[in-house]
Amino acid sequence: MAAPQIPKGFRDFLPQKMVVRKRIISLMTEVFESFGFEPLDTPCLEYAETLEGKYGEEGEKLIYKFEDRGGRNVALRYDLTIPLCRVVSAHPELPKPFKRYQIAPVWRADKPQKGRFREFYQCDIDIIGTDSVYADGELLAITDTVLGKLGFDNFVIRINNRKVMNAFALCCGLKDVEVASFLRSLDKLDKIGAESVLRDLKDSGILNAKLEKSLSDFIINDSSCGDPLLEMASIVKQTEEGAEGMAELEIIRDSLTAYGVCEENYMFDFSLARGLDYYTGPVFETIVKEPKIGSITGGGRYDNLIGLFSKNTIPATGTSFGLERLVTVMEEMASGETLSGNTQVLITCFDDSFMKENMKVATILRKNGIKTEIYYKKSKLKKQLSYASNRAIKLVIIMGPDEVNENNITLRDMTAGTQETVSQHEMAEKIKRVYDIK
Amino acid sequence: MAAPQIPKGFRDFLPQKMVVRKRIISLMTEVFESFGFEPLDTPCLEYAETLEGKYGEEGEKLIYKFEDRGGRNVALRYDLTIPLCRVVSAHPELPKPFKRYQIAPVWRADKPQKGRFREFYQCDIDIIGTDSVYADGELLAITDTVLGKLGFDNFVIRINNRKVMNAFALCCGLKDVEVASFLRSLDKLDKIGAESVLRDLKDSGILNAKLEKSLSDFIINDSSCGDPLLEMASIVKQTEEGAEGMAELEIIRDSLTAYGVCEENYMFDFSLARGLDYYTGPVFETIVKEPKIGSITGGGRYDNLIGLFSKNTIPATGTSFGLERLVTVMEEMASGETLSGNTQVLITCFDDSFMKENMKVATILRKNGIKTEIYYKKSKLKKQLSYASNRAIKLVIIMGPDEVNENNITLRDMTAGTQETVSQHEMAEKIKRVYDIK
Repeated sequence: MAAPQIPKGFRDFLPQKMVVRKRIISLMTEVFESFGFEPLDTPCLEYAETLEGKYGEEGEKLIYKFEDRGGRNVALRYDLTIPLCRVVSAHPELPKPFKRYQIAPVWRADKPQKGRFREFYQCDIDIIGTDSVYADGELLAITDTVLGKLGFDNFVIRINNRKVMNAFALCCGLKDVEVASFLRSLDKLDKIGAESVLRDLKDSGILNAKLEKSLSDFIINDSSCGDPLLEMASIVKQTEEGAEGMAELEIIRDSLTAYGVCEENYMFDFSLARGLDYYTGPVFETIVKEPKIGSITGGGRYDNLIGLFSKNTIPATGTSFGLERLVTVMEEMASGETLSGNTQVLITCFDDSFMKENMKVATILRKNGIKTEIYYKKSKLKKQLSYASNRAIKLVIIMGPDEVNENNITLRDMTAGTQETVSQHEMAEKIKRVYDIK
Repeated sequence: MAAPQIPKGFRDFLPQKMVVRKRIISLMTEVFESFGFEPLDTPCLEYAETLEGKYGEEGEKLIYKFEDRGGRNVALRYDLTIPLCRVVSAHPELPKPFKRYQIAPVWRADKPQKGRFREFYQCDIDIIGTDSVYADGELLAITDTVLGKLGFDNFVIRINNRKVMNAFALCCGLKDVEVASFLRSLDKLDKIGAESVLRDLKDSGILNAKLEKSLSDFIINDSSCGDPLLEMASIVKQTEEGAEGMAELEIIRDSLTAYGVCEENYMFDFSLARGLDYYTGPVFETIVKEPKIGSITGGGRYDNLIGLFSKNTIPATGTSFGLERLVTVMEEMASGETLSGNTQVLITCFDDSFMKENMKVATILRKNGIKTEIYYKKSKLKKQLSYASNRAIKLVIIMGPDEVNENNITLRDMTAGTQETVSQHEMAEKIKRVYDIK
């Protein structure tokens, strides 16, 4: 009988894959908590109406919806932001600013394709209840810290501001109602190129000579001579919104400097639009130069979103790390290197009558922080050693009658192929040195 | 506008709850890995046919099923065991024994009631590919280790064996086809009492005089004089299955002794049946004396289950910790004690012009492993201090012009209500001493 399949776009993660995923999650968690973020969890199922009308026309189609047994329309979580907004509006007692992280799967009924899945993890940090742009700056400092600790060295955080882009569009003669359409076209610059964006804008009937020239001067052709903020300011500072947006970008620049973020790790990029309609201020995303996989983080300020669920508007900003893409980068960096498993020592079974001795030795090692497993029954030593090497276990303990009688073990190094006799009294110390366990 | 609800039987976990859940999960993970278990993850959605026919009549009704956009019947994961069986049959290359843990939510469309939810976490460890009962013994040693490390001191692991119970039933004159029904009645002993179990058996037409007497002597009235294993052996050892089952229980007893498990923490209990039909050998569960919340772990050997998905039968055993009930016990134990959050230090904001200094100080503390957050904008000190106490943050840093000019900080202990001036050079050392951070 063939083993049953799993639905397309869904995945099993076998231990070797899981070890990488867990390493990334644990490192992120550590950084998030070091900045004072606290964990939150929300249900995988929400009422459909909670999610509907939040993700734009395209997103809406991708929500997994169904009717539960009670006839209510429910939906699988599409992202972690809308559930957060629901929680914040349901719990006004939460101290503000409320800083939470959530690392959890979300579901989208997208067409499965390379690197795109129907179930995938988002790792979100959000700061709710402050309009201070230092909060946005902090999110970027965290982004830089996480990626640095993961060993990434070829990333750039792109930073822009919706207020600046609104002002830019209006200064170029667009009407209020045309701004969203302008940003949607601009958002495609990376994918389709400048010519196509211009054609797109023309097709939408919003391209005029001033817009075309300004786009070309300040956005499409990143001249990069001088300070990009100063150049953009020269266009938009005349409007209140533009001046405000520029001041916000300055605060972000100050924050990144104060946090010691390397200048090569970020850039102000006025071609960054970010797809979602709900952003109101700073927006940001991170790209890696290699491999080419799109953005690995993305976020921005959304001061009006919580108002959809609540009497009061509550300012908020957040960013999201895409776990799947981080894994891809990690695997690329580690290519060739075998990622070892968790277990450090295998105790082989000479005979079932030695099992008690084996369990006692295992208990001593575990109490010393050494990850130890025992082989459960007698079989050929060769088979047991081959199990150890298949599992990438570096050290093997062999205990026959001689070892047991003299309270010794034979310790075999699977990598070197050497072995030596060690007293049970000293074995933990010795093994801890090999693994540098304190 | 009222905040939207979440579906009945589903829950949000706010940070204070999450801190307890994460502490339990992280401790379990550490113990599982110390015994050589590796992480596995499987999709939340499976094809419905993978789950159907595996959980008995009652269970079947509780599966969340729906049709996806492609018209395929899919279902939310009902437990972690069936997906594991699917994975093992789909990946014959996995080294055996395959020891995995998985800590993840499952869904059951049960009637929501106190302590019963439609979305809840299971924490499973399973050992696939060995029929050695030392594997079962190890699962119980792990159970004891986890509960001990959580600080539980009033638990008992109940242990039985399906082979013994089959032999017992046959020795008492039941027919093969009557055994399942006998076990189902026996399983209710704790809930409905001896009299009702006997009536149940009578109603099913399988109660005879011998069964009634044996039940009364060996199971219902736990006489507890002498060795319960010896007494049961006197009935069932005449049959091959009974002798095998008794030998397995002896191996488990030997294992628990070798692992140094305290005798008060386990008992052999022939009234333990465990609901599921698929168990084939040792079965076990853990109960706590207070609070009365049913079993907190449960499992057993299921040598024939993987055969449903695979050409070959593959022996397997496993156990599951119920996170929700562990949390209940933890909260009971900690009652009165305020569980503190994660953040250790809050840096207040004297004025926005001091933010750069605040960020620098925060960066130093974080690099020293101190969980630090900054207040994002100027507001009354009283408001900032009240934020710290609402968040259960013990230390607050205040930096005004004097402190900044002299490279000092003022460190306020929120519990003691005291404060002192400390140089920025020494502050990390001082704070690490407070929190005993190495």
